[in-house]
Amino acid sequence: MPSSIKRIGILTGGGDCPGLNAVIRAVTKTALHRHGLEVMGIEDGFQGLVQNRLRQLHNEDVSNILTLGGTILGTNNKCDPRNYVVARNGHTEKADVTDRCMEHLAHHQIDALVVIGGDGTMSVASHFVRQGINCIGVPKTIDNDLEGTDVTFGFATACMIASEALDRIHTTAASHHRAMIVEVMGRNAGWLALQSGVASGADIILLPEIPYDIHKICQAVTDRSRHGKRFSIICVSEGAKPVGGKVVVDRVDPNSPDPIRLGGVGKVIATQIEELTGIETRTTVLGHVQRGGTPVVEDRILATQFGHAALDGLMRGLQSRLIVMKGRTVSDIDLLDVADKQRLVKLDHPLMQVARDLGTTFGD
Amino acid sequence: MPSSIKRIGILTGGGDCPGLNAVIRAVTKTALHRHGLEVMGIEDGFQGLVQNRLRQLHNEDVSNILTLGGTILGTNNKCDPRNYVVARNGHTEKADVTDRCMEHLAHHQIDALVVIGGDGTMSVASHFVRQGINCIGVPKTIDNDLEGTDVTFGFATACMIASEALDRIHTTAASHHRAMIVEVMGRNAGWLALQSGVASGADIILLPEIPYDIHKICQAVTDRSRHGKRFSIICVSEGAKPVGGKVVVDRVDPNSPDPIRLGGVGKVIATQIEELTGIETRTTVLGHVQRGGTPVVEDRILATQFGHAALDGLMRGLQSRLIVMKGRTVSDIDLLDVADKQRLVKLDHPLMQVARDLGTTFGD
Amino acid sequence: MPSSIKRIGILTGGGDCPGLNAVIRAVTKTALHRHGLEVMGIEDGFQGLVQNRLRQLHNEDVSNILTLGGTILGTNNKCDPRNYVVARNGHTEKADVTDRCMEHLAHHQIDALVVIGGDGTMSVASHFVRQGINCIGVPKTIDNDLEGTDVTFGFATACMIASEALDRIHTTAASHHRAMIVEVMGRNAGWLALQSGVASGADIILLPEIPYDIHKICQAVTDRSRHGKRFSIICVSEGAKPVGGKVVVDRVDPNSPDPIRLGGVGKVIATQIEELTGIETRTTVLGHVQRGGTPVVEDRILATQFGHAALDGLMRGLQSRLIVMKGRTVSDIDLLDVADKQRLVKLDHPLMQVARDLGTTFGD
Amino acid sequence: MPSSIKRIGILTGGGDCPGLNAVIRAVTKTALHRHGLEVMGIEDGFQGLVQNRLRQLHNEDVSNILTLGGTILGTNNKCDPRNYVVARNGHTEKADVTDRCMEHLAHHQIDALVVIGGDGTMSVASHFVRQGINCIGVPKTIDNDLEGTDVTFGFATACMIASEALDRIHTTAASHHRAMIVEVMGRNAGWLALQSGVASGADIILLPEIPYDIHKICQAVTDRSRHGKRFSIICVSEGAKPVGGKVVVDRVDPNSPDPIRLGGVGKVIATQIEELTGIETRTTVLGHVQRGGTPVVEDRILATQFGHAALDGLMRGLQSRLIVMKGRTVSDIDLLDVADKQRLVKLDHPLMQVARDLGTTFGD
Repeated sequence: MPSSIKRIGILTGGGDCPGLNAVIRAVTKTALHRHGLEVMGIEDGFQGLVQNRLRQLHNEDVSNILTLGGTILGTNNKCDPRNYVVARNGHTEKADVTDRCMEHLAHHQIDALVVIGGDGTMSVASHFVRQGINCIGVPKTIDNDLEGTDVTFGFATACMIASEALDRIHTTAASHHRAMIVEVMGRNAGWLALQSGVASGADIILLPEIPYDIHKICQAVTDRSRHGKRFSIICVSEGAKPVGGKVVVDRVDPNSPDPIRLGGVGKVIATQIEELTGIETRTTVLGHVQRGGTPVVEDRILATQFGHAALDGLMRGLQSRLIVMKGRTVSDIDLLDVADKQRLVKLDHPLMQVARDLGTTFGD
Repeated sequence: MPSSIKRIGILTGGGDCPGLNAVIRAVTKTALHRHGLEVMGIEDGFQGLVQNRLRQLHNEDVSNILTLGGTILGTNNKCDPRNYVVARNGHTEKADVTDRCMEHLAHHQIDALVVIGGDGTMSVASHFVRQGINCIGVPKTIDNDLEGTDVTFGFATACMIASEALDRIHTTAASHHRAMIVEVMGRNAGWLALQSGVASGADIILLPEIPYDIHKICQAVTDRSRHGKRFSIICVSEGAKPVGGKVVVDRVDPNSPDPIRLGGVGKVIATQIEELTGIETRTTVLGHVQRGGTPVVEDRILATQFGHAALDGLMRGLQSRLIVMKGRTVSDIDLLDVADKQRLVKLDHPLMQVARDLGTTFGD
Repeated sequence: MPSSIKRIGILTGGGDCPGLNAVIRAVTKTALHRHGLEVMGIEDGFQGLVQNRLRQLHNEDVSNILTLGGTILGTNNKCDPRNYVVARNGHTEKADVTDRCMEHLAHHQIDALVVIGGDGTMSVASHFVRQGINCIGVPKTIDNDLEGTDVTFGFATACMIASEALDRIHTTAASHHRAMIVEVMGRNAGWLALQSGVASGADIILLPEIPYDIHKICQAVTDRSRHGKRFSIICVSEGAKPVGGKVVVDRVDPNSPDPIRLGGVGKVIATQIEELTGIETRTTVLGHVQRGGTPVVEDRILATQFGHAALDGLMRGLQSRLIVMKGRTVSDIDLLDVADKQRLVKLDHPLMQVARDLGTTFGD
Repeated sequence: MPSSIKRIGILTGGGDCPGLNAVIRAVTKTALHRHGLEVMGIEDGFQGLVQNRLRQLHNEDVSNILTLGGTILGTNNKCDPRNYVVARNGHTEKADVTDRCMEHLAHHQIDALVVIGGDGTMSVASHFVRQGINCIGVPKTIDNDLEGTDVTFGFATACMIASEALDRIHTTAASHHRAMIVEVMGRNAGWLALQSGVASGADIILLPEIPYDIHKICQAVTDRSRHGKRFSIICVSEGAKPVGGKVVVDRVDPNSPDPIRLGGVGKVIATQIEELTGIETRTTVLGHVQRGGTPVVEDRILATQFGHAALDGLMRGLQSRLIVMKGRTVSDIDLLDVADKQRLVKLDHPLMQVARDLGTTFGD
């Protein structure tokens, strides 16, 4: 039975991630070229659906965007139509604007949605699935921490950026006989720290999954020093935590009642290493550069495969599935299955053993 | 039962490949740090074994080489101790110098070999296996065409270089309304052309596995022209061949009895496109830049995993195995199994279907 | 006296060159933002003027193009309105279509032209100057061979690309004990070979300005070999020539009456080195990758300065001038002064002496 | 009269800077190859001179270091032999150890020193000049803020890194409709912010030389928003300061009597923009990645020229001079002339006018 789908919508939600445009391009090109569908781009995630900001995507709209960072549709990492902030009688309040979204979908004759995003975006997508809208999800996280898929696009690019920074820092550390800390992203998952740390030969890698003992870290730094290696490279995940504790990162601003987050775990560890070992230590926090810009080859291909699989799945009759990669095969799982399930680095992950055997310390 | 191995040898054979030093580093660091072994580096592949050029590798010898292209041990892609060129009585002849190699191994008390190389190197390694020397192979080919493993190190770096070139060429093509051809490596396998072509959105991709019809290529170029796209990017594998034929690439040098290879398939196709369509066409042959320099993150990690697995396997008692990657898991296969078996792109490879559905032409 | 200019035209001619879009952006932004002018983009160089293909450029047209390779206006390296190919009575002939161009300029009320291009483009621009059209030229050549300016945009990017290739090739040469040749662009000028050769520590650099003696080259290669350096990196300009001679690069195609250019000086030298020294030698011809893609910082700034200076000059009343860089100061010279004057590398150029003192050979 | 110099010493002082190894290589190769001198490398800046840690540099020591970040000699940015910390009777005190240095120089028969470093290092060098040691200085600062030279090596590499980060951040800003701040180095000089800001098309550039008005910044951000540009890129120098004020950047650590520097001007401005405009704003502090790693082509050539000129100058009889670049010509000035003189961005610098005319705001 041929698919009855004539026109689809597509949107991107959540934080920036290299490869978003590659997905949009693959979905649109496959839809236009292979299946003769029409594609409506929804601007700024679900916010564009609430505000009825959609535009048709033609082949020329998605030409030359494969290498482009960001998303040509715009994104939004806060909008939930079930709790939408509306102005009413001079003040703002939250309202459920699902009906408005449904009207816009009907008005534009959209038969199905391709939704590219992370946890939050998929949670909203599930809501629309329950309203009867077929949504195919494409997972997006540079943190690579999604349960159900072995890898997500954007992660390889983030690894490249983190690794390049570690390589650069390496020469400074070696010339100055310093400990150098590079703090990378990853939220509660250590994938980015582990991969970029191994790729750049970091001496110490600190993951959220393994609470660190600052004394073990200092021991490793001074051991290296004793063996004639007068520098140490430390790759620390932003979510790393000390044994039995919480990183103190807030400051009290004398002019403000609220604490302001000014530093992170990297700076805290640097201070402690200097105090405990006397070895000069510097921290670099990579921040948003890890999220933006041209995707690497691996992410371009993965994003293209995911986008194609989403559209292809739609036409094959898939209902509310999330596209994933298992081993080296594209597959799909239930869209609702991934909510709130994070894929963390297991302590017996093979790459951890590799790193340990080569002499890397995890602070445990 | 603990391993009786006390000292290992390591060598690299065949062509250059980004990640060789990462393997050498991983083998050596794991041997020294984890197992307390000694490591002898054999220079210039099996030639160093014949000529007794070995040197001990210490930790400092493999520090800071992770990001370094090439191989610190040197390589050689012709030496076969069974057919070794020796000078005798004023002329050269071929001789079997296996005994000499065995003496050198015995003299240096080498208990096992880690052999990093391609087909040719593994064939020689098998010979030593039959002489009773335990060899663990680590596969090396930027062409990614080895039967038995899903991926080889060096390939991702080659893809990155090819893709960067395609990206650069893209702007020139678009500005000049030209067809631009980029000829990439791959021997008889189209992996590099396929991956880099998809990653850079090439309009036409030509693989050795799919004989091309020059008229189909010209059709695709002129079709694009008619649709307002006044340029075409063609990614062609060096091994691509026309339907029913062979590429003519040799010239007759008036001063030499032998033909000299001056051009390749890329230049031949360019000439034909210009003749058949009148559209200006230019070719770039990437050549050896695809083989050298700093490996990308993916290759650094893969090479590190392979090196670690080789040493780890040795200590676990593996005998004459080749380290491979299946899915995302490191494994091993019989060293003799891979000889002369090439992994080609299958015509139903999922990425080929993705490319076709997005509008890419394969010239068939 | 305020300028009477209300609307300008802008076009790009000649080959691709990183930084073209940065010039277009700077001209347009300065015109719109600073002077309140209107800007008409002329498509595909002077061909767009003949064919009346112009479009107005607004701020959004030049947003996000600073880092983009190529030219958003398109270019053309053959069109000369004085010798324009027109179809007449079933055959083509050449005609002077200057009047047609003048009508189009008048129709669009264009008061002055900013013309970005090389020798050929400036020659056409001078023709329009003689017709009474004020043209301000912005020089464009990746070869950096323009008399009157110390540097041109695009050159730094080409140097970076050539240098990256030389760096990659370096590891292959060192691992294999080979001579490796990289042939770079430059036409009759050796700037690109000199700068990229010095930047990457090439052992031998061959420039068009210094006829090479193949025996001196072989001597340098074997000398290095004798001193334990078993590889040599040779950076050769495409225009390099042997002492007293001409490089033979053409082949006779058995199926064609015309010789086809298949190889260049790099391949010829490789063959000779192998024959004369027995040392394995490989050549890479960089080709068009040197002309395309994102410009480096230096070129972005230079192109921005040139574009700004062109528009600024127009408003200050400059007539038929070419924007140039003297030392580190932007200046301008007579547009007609540069025709057919090429800036070559002088034999006593300071960087040549630097290279010689460090041990580099120039084959002389 | 031939120079009586037979053996020179070389050292690197101060912070890391891409190009240091290129200088060491050029000095050493010129000394060995051109003048037949001997070269002693002094480790870790002047500290190696105090501690008599010198080693002879041969050609192979400086091969393959041209592209290497850092310094193979090590550096030190605190050691001053006039105020050297020595342990005496169980406590530390400061002493003048100049005599000890002079003995080591005499013992190693060093006739002259090449000193690569910044202000602090040159101040120590002048001290040795007054002791009768001929020192030729090579200036080093990624900040490009040295009076007497138009450009210093390392600066171009830092610009490239900052510009790459701005490019990446750009896509995130555009996708999220945010203001994004990138804080770059430069101490009291805005060169790095100005050049990288212009090269990446930053909308707002804040320099130490131009006190900023936060309301002007917010005005620019909201103006862009009103014109449909829903994002702003702000490139801020670490030394930027508000009108009439000082940036508050310290926190009081409850567990420590001393304030700890956790944030900088970038984070302060982000907080203010969010408060004053309601527009989401993020900051990235680039930090030490700007100082390390492989130098770009421009820096490799400049560093090579400087190193060559230092040695060449020595042999021509120069006494206590600092190598500089004026326009595009290498020259030299009195070593003592540069002490404590910083080259700041002048308010009428041509590039500032270019940026303003293109629409960039400087917050004034």
